[in-house]
Amino acid sequence: MRVYLDNNATTMVAPEVVSEMEPYFSQKYGNPNSLHDFGRETHPGIQRAIDRIYTAINANDEDDIIITSCATESNNWVLKSVWVDKILNGDKNHIITTEVEHPSVLATCKFLESQGVKVTYLPVNHEGVVEAHIVNSFITNKTALVSVMWANNETGMIFPVKEIAEICRENGVLFHTDAVQAVGKIKVDVNEVKPDFMSMSAHKFHGPKGVGALYIKDSQALSPLLNGGEHMGGRRSGTLNVPYIVGMGKAIELATQNLEETTAKIRKLRDKLEDALLEIPDTFVVGSRDNRTPNTLLISIKGVEGEGMLWDLNRYGIGASTGSACASEDLEANTVMVAIGEDPELAHTGIRLSLSRYTTEEEIDYTIEHFKKAVDRLRNISSSYAKVAPTPGGEAAECHIPQHA
Amino acid sequence: MRVYLDNNATTMVAPEVVSEMEPYFSQKYGNPNSLHDFGRETHPGIQRAIDRIYTAINANDEDDIIITSCATESNNWVLKSVWVDKILNGDKNHIITTEVEHPSVLATCKFLESQGVKVTYLPVNHEGVVEAHIVNSFITNKTALVSVMWANNETGMIFPVKEIAEICRENGVLFHTDAVQAVGKIKVDVNEVKPDFMSMSAHKFHGPKGVGALYIKDSQALSPLLNGGEHMGGRRSGTLNVPYIVGMGKAIELATQNLEETTAKIRKLRDKLEDALLEIPDTFVVGSRDNRTPNTLLISIKGVEGEGMLWDLNRYGIGASTGSACASEDLEANTVMVAIGEDPELAHTGIRLSLSRYTTEEEIDYTIEHFKKAVDRLRNISSSYAKVAPTPGGEAAECHIPQHA
Repeated sequence: MRVYLDNNATTMVAPEVVSEMEPYFSQKYGNPNSLHDFGRETHPGIQRAIDRIYTAINANDEDDIIITSCATESNNWVLKSVWVDKILNGDKNHIITTEVEHPSVLATCKFLESQGVKVTYLPVNHEGVVEAHIVNSFITNKTALVSVMWANNETGMIFPVKEIAEICRENGVLFHTDAVQAVGKIKVDVNEVKPDFMSMSAHKFHGPKGVGALYIKDSQALSPLLNGGEHMGGRRSGTLNVPYIVGMGKAIELATQNLEETTAKIRKLRDKLEDALLEIPDTFVVGSRDNRTPNTLLISIKGVEGEGMLWDLNRYGIGASTGSACASEDLEANTVMVAIGEDPELAHTGIRLSLSRYTTEEEIDYTIEHFKKAVDRLRNISSSYAKVAPTPGGEAAECHIPQHA
Repeated sequence: MRVYLDNNATTMVAPEVVSEMEPYFSQKYGNPNSLHDFGRETHPGIQRAIDRIYTAINANDEDDIIITSCATESNNWVLKSVWVDKILNGDKNHIITTEVEHPSVLATCKFLESQGVKVTYLPVNHEGVVEAHIVNSFITNKTALVSVMWANNETGMIFPVKEIAEICRENGVLFHTDAVQAVGKIKVDVNEVKPDFMSMSAHKFHGPKGVGALYIKDSQALSPLLNGGEHMGGRRSGTLNVPYIVGMGKAIELATQNLEETTAKIRKLRDKLEDALLEIPDTFVVGSRDNRTPNTLLISIKGVEGEGMLWDLNRYGIGASTGSACASEDLEANTVMVAIGEDPELAHTGIRLSLSRYTTEEEIDYTIEHFKKAVDRLRNISSSYAKVAPTPGGEAAECHIPQHA
């Protein structure tokens, strides 16, 4: 059996999405900017897709939704263009973000620091959440932008973006939110939360990899990151990726149209999985369920290296992760667990399991069975676990360490 | 009959390319950065694609080929990162480009000018080509970069990039070439031409829209445009667009593997079309055939507005353009024709016809027939043409101007 539980890293493209994209590869292949019918016949599909995105996030007609190549581009765009517009060519010098943003925000902030920008990295509480009131304490009259994610990729914890947006508005500071892990998982209503900028990525909600968007409230000014042929009203140049725009539109419609019903099913399976895994001694899950995206579970298993666990699960066809796929080749400690103050050893024991609407109960049962077996196996060969706690009901694990393993 | 003759704007995705991409949407959908098999099973396809791109342009193992979302991104990346690395954080202040670059280079240069960068826009000769020796005259010890396209999108004229690269090398100046209109149409050998940076775009050679690449000689330093999760060796972050990378690899292989044979066939059809259209009085084609990409033809028809001609051709199912699709919604004069010094009225009469390996002789015959009819019709209602020359063998065109048309 193969069980894919790494949907926060990326998702399967929904078959309906593939079907809608298909005609735009070799049939309706014109450049939408061309004046002839080959170009114009792409317009209804693009328009429908854009309309679907507006509907899905409840954007107003006055707002802009600009298609990008991914949320990494959207995030870089906001941060670097605010740098150009408000810092290089303005009187600001400060950006506020959090310690637990996606690498595309954190690495861009590091770049901006190398250019003399002051960046404040807000800490998170023990649940891995930035508390809204903290933002207020760090805003100065030099602050150009606050960038705080809507939901965290590693824990699924939901941030108080509405309150933070309000604080920013009161202080006349721009507010950007990376909503990559929120769209399609929880209600994302820009009319209610009112961010100035919001990043999205299709491949997190069963659309294709390589297309995202930036929502821009009231179509306000922001220098382009990609200058050129004035595509998308001059805001983002580059020949329109018609199939993927069409695909993103279909994907966001599918992911949001019956949100409560779909996520109730996902939540039930996630909770079943979580309850079962918490029966294993010396485990804990980061963040309360109530304030977490319904598909996500970051569990720490004392004495079990996350990577070892991944390999063991992988042998049984189960795909999981130790945290962000965007950092997973590094085999580093889970950054959120470090940020919430877990000791480094424990931060290496996090396993993220993230479900989708395609996850079945059979898959969850299979995962529970093999997850428990894997923990037993790995604890049995773990010298560190044996030192801190005996294997329940058994001998000390050290006895079982295989030689030359 | 439908005839697509706008292949410099974009191309049909080759069916073989679609087939190779398909499994990566809903079957092998893992994130390549993930450690589990869902991620790892994408690696052979990605590796094969990258290898195919190296082979197609004859790159060395020491060089980098970094996948981007399009050539607009590649061009913005080079220009903006050279700005950051060599101007903002260095002692240079000058960039050299040409008057006839793609909008993604020209608009980015305009942005850089707004940031205090000095930009020299090299003029072109009567054939629409920048002569190599001119580059030498404008390089100073403050010049950070020279950016000159390999082949022009509107005329197909081929630029002396090898000589320009040599001049840059001798002067210790970086050389970037936008090879979007060259790859798949003429031999593109980076080992022979030796640019420091070279931009490519898959959708110009029957790959998908929304994926391109930047070739970087000897993997030399260049700040990322997209910071983030350290994808592509930290040079370009963003979850890898696996299907399109696979598609680009297949497309470049197909487009380059029998280049001489394929382009000979295209050239023959283009020449037949060109010969036939030049039989129409008061027409001229920009640039000599010998120094032009084999698929392209920019013809000026005195007295016939390019847009009028487009609409007329479109009625007969023929897709053509007045120049760059990236500027075609503006209905402006053809920029290259303006650059070579044509009077503005004539610069509005350019029609670009660009063939592909899918173009058939039947389509060319059909186009010749309807193109000639369209010119007759439009000259008959053109007051400007009647003033400069009588319709051959007929009465003055003015008589035929319909009232209230």
